[in-house]
Amino acid sequence: MQITASIITIGDELLIGQTIDTNSAWLAQHLNQIGVWVQKRIAVGDVKAQIESTLTAELLTSNIIIITGGLGPTADDITKPLLCDFFGGTMIQNAAVEAHVRAFFEKRNRPMLDLNIAQASVPDNCEVLWNQYGTAPGMLFVQGTQLIFALPGVPLEMKDIMESSGLHKIASHFVLPQVHHRTLCTAGKGESFIAIGLKDFEQSLPSHIKLAYLPALGQVKMRLTSQNGDICELDRYFDKLATKLSHIVYAREDISIEQAIVQKLMTNQKTISLAESCTGGYIAHLFTNVGCASKVLISSYVSYTNQAKVDMLAVQQETLDQHSAVSENVCAEMAKACYAKAGSEYAIAVTGYLEPIENTEAHAWLSIFDGVATQTVKHLLPYNRQRNKELLANYALLLLWRTISTDQN
Amino acid sequence: MQITASIITIGDELLIGQTIDTNSAWLAQHLNQIGVWVQKRIAVGDVKAQIESTLTAELLTSNIIIITGGLGPTADDITKPLLCDFFGGTMIQNAAVEAHVRAFFEKRNRPMLDLNIAQASVPDNCEVLWNQYGTAPGMLFVQGTQLIFALPGVPLEMKDIMESSGLHKIASHFVLPQVHHRTLCTAGKGESFIAIGLKDFEQSLPSHIKLAYLPALGQVKMRLTSQNGDICELDRYFDKLATKLSHIVYAREDISIEQAIVQKLMTNQKTISLAESCTGGYIAHLFTNVGCASKVLISSYVSYTNQAKVDMLAVQQETLDQHSAVSENVCAEMAKACYAKAGSEYAIAVTGYLEPIENTEAHAWLSIFDGVATQTVKHLLPYNRQRNKELLANYALLLLWRTISTDQN
Repeated sequence: MQITASIITIGDELLIGQTIDTNSAWLAQHLNQIGVWVQKRIAVGDVKAQIESTLTAELLTSNIIIITGGLGPTADDITKPLLCDFFGGTMIQNAAVEAHVRAFFEKRNRPMLDLNIAQASVPDNCEVLWNQYGTAPGMLFVQGTQLIFALPGVPLEMKDIMESSGLHKIASHFVLPQVHHRTLCTAGKGESFIAIGLKDFEQSLPSHIKLAYLPALGQVKMRLTSQNGDICELDRYFDKLATKLSHIVYAREDISIEQAIVQKLMTNQKTISLAESCTGGYIAHLFTNVGCASKVLISSYVSYTNQAKVDMLAVQQETLDQHSAVSENVCAEMAKACYAKAGSEYAIAVTGYLEPIENTEAHAWLSIFDGVATQTVKHLLPYNRQRNKELLANYALLLLWRTISTDQN
Repeated sequence: MQITASIITIGDELLIGQTIDTNSAWLAQHLNQIGVWVQKRIAVGDVKAQIESTLTAELLTSNIIIITGGLGPTADDITKPLLCDFFGGTMIQNAAVEAHVRAFFEKRNRPMLDLNIAQASVPDNCEVLWNQYGTAPGMLFVQGTQLIFALPGVPLEMKDIMESSGLHKIASHFVLPQVHHRTLCTAGKGESFIAIGLKDFEQSLPSHIKLAYLPALGQVKMRLTSQNGDICELDRYFDKLATKLSHIVYAREDISIEQAIVQKLMTNQKTISLAESCTGGYIAHLFTNVGCASKVLISSYVSYTNQAKVDMLAVQQETLDQHSAVSENVCAEMAKACYAKAGSEYAIAVTGYLEPIENTEAHAWLSIFDGVATQTVKHLLPYNRQRNKELLANYALLLLWRTISTDQN
């Protein structure tokens, strides 16, 4: 039997659009990984009748209900007493939670309000799930074979509670299928084109193995999922897939391309540096989100003005005058100067217009220098400012990945 | 009468968590602004029966239904024929859309698939809404007094269709309340503390004016909304609110703090530069998301390694040896060196550990130098790597905002 879940998010902030719901995607991903199928996600406001009717409806069709939000200390947050009533309990003060709340404020040197003490009041018919990062405890109600979770809406807190207890409780309460995943990460080709090449492969898959395409800007992750199947069989299909797509694969595990680059550079004991004009620090930001980036990224010169290109990178004033800041020549000079200044094995430079300017389309130049050869390419940027920046950073990462992958040293 | 909307997002990718739904928040925000109340948001998979039952249920309670997703060219995308049937229409080929699709592929030099031509097939009982950024047209079904929109799931495309036609159609179809908003942006104080100081103010508000708190990391935006009220009355309350919070206000319109900084620096004809170690380009990235940042941001030195601090910024090796890279002294030296090298009027430096290291808690130093005085402060970082980076960037922006606001020159 397929175990199903519904995710209910509560809070007016979702309905007035002040908050982007990242919790639901995370929950769906993690439930999926243990073999639970999310069949519906619903967001409702802080309205008692609406919460109750939604909960009633979902209890008719799902084995697991995960409620997030509405547990804060303010008057809007009506979820806790509502659930207590709904499942026929009484509110009681929980000493362990109260001690945790007091310690929480003490540690941060912040005065505590009565509202905060009230957060330690919990229904007596639920199991308290520990929230190490915040003051609103998670709650688990067990109703026959069904599990109902109520979790704080703050993503860090919600995720931590699910990872440290929620997911284990689900896995031990239900008989879940043996689900195994293998993820192949590709870059540089679109979903439709990959799909055409994989037609035969997809048809050859047994019914218990499914292939999912997870596209993002410039990248497509391919996920093979086997339900109750043999793990060696899954690995065989995964190897076949990896071979078919070998020209565009950057990792055989679910990581970002910048993570793959950092790993490869560490293995090869090489370093990189960046000269960013229009990406304005964004590529460096992506690298420094990776834990051990400091082992491979020496520096990024964010030279946003022409003068900065001259001062920081010693780009020739003459080259700027003759070709303008957004040109093949300036970009190549930036990469070489960056290489020389930072003393890294690879240097990447980017200069461009993220938005159309006068009669010129938005476009950028990308250059990579490895001490021997310079590759410089031009890209048109068809979107708005923000998305063009992301797209361009992706092009840069792909160029870097291809260069370090083909490099023999 | 309150005009209400339901947002239905379609696609398995939402239920396996591969996509974070940013569309719903954007839609809710923009519907709210024209006086439409979003009462529910639902995500369902690519399952005919589920889409139909959800649509049927929402048509019973909402005046407007906005469906996003499920309009792509692949076999999973069942929404278009389903809606055609549901509202009793027939699919026909639309010549204008077909010409647009062909031009779209030609311009990008990409081969076109039969699948793509099929995107020009639309129900004859809908109005086609032009999609300039993509190949899946938007659709509007009018059922008596109700409006049902079906829009592509790609955020850029969905937003553009709504902005260029959808929102106008809603505004002209319904008698909507006169809704006016005023947004006050604050930084540096938490929501609960602001709320305590505003108790009397909130109680003084007439029933047709509402105050909403929109908190983000380190910032709280306060939105006053008046329904069918006098605009001068709203302005008077807004002035009162701004006066009460004057010590923490950074803008009297809905902009980010980095936008406010860029505006203020432009007015004062001043420039900034950055020396970023652990924020790794993130602060520069935030600034360069603002359109005219190139007028005020000269450069950012992302000096990720110790050697880079010496090479890029001429931090003394002695200071590094004596105090370590994460120290008040190194941070102050970075700010001064950055100021001197970039030739800007203000320089900000950041150095720290985003994650605990050995027995040391995650923390960072921030320094600002304006040619006369140096301010250097230490911040503890209680979250995970990613969130600590964001928090620290916020501290830096706040410090910069306060410095340029109090500066007399």
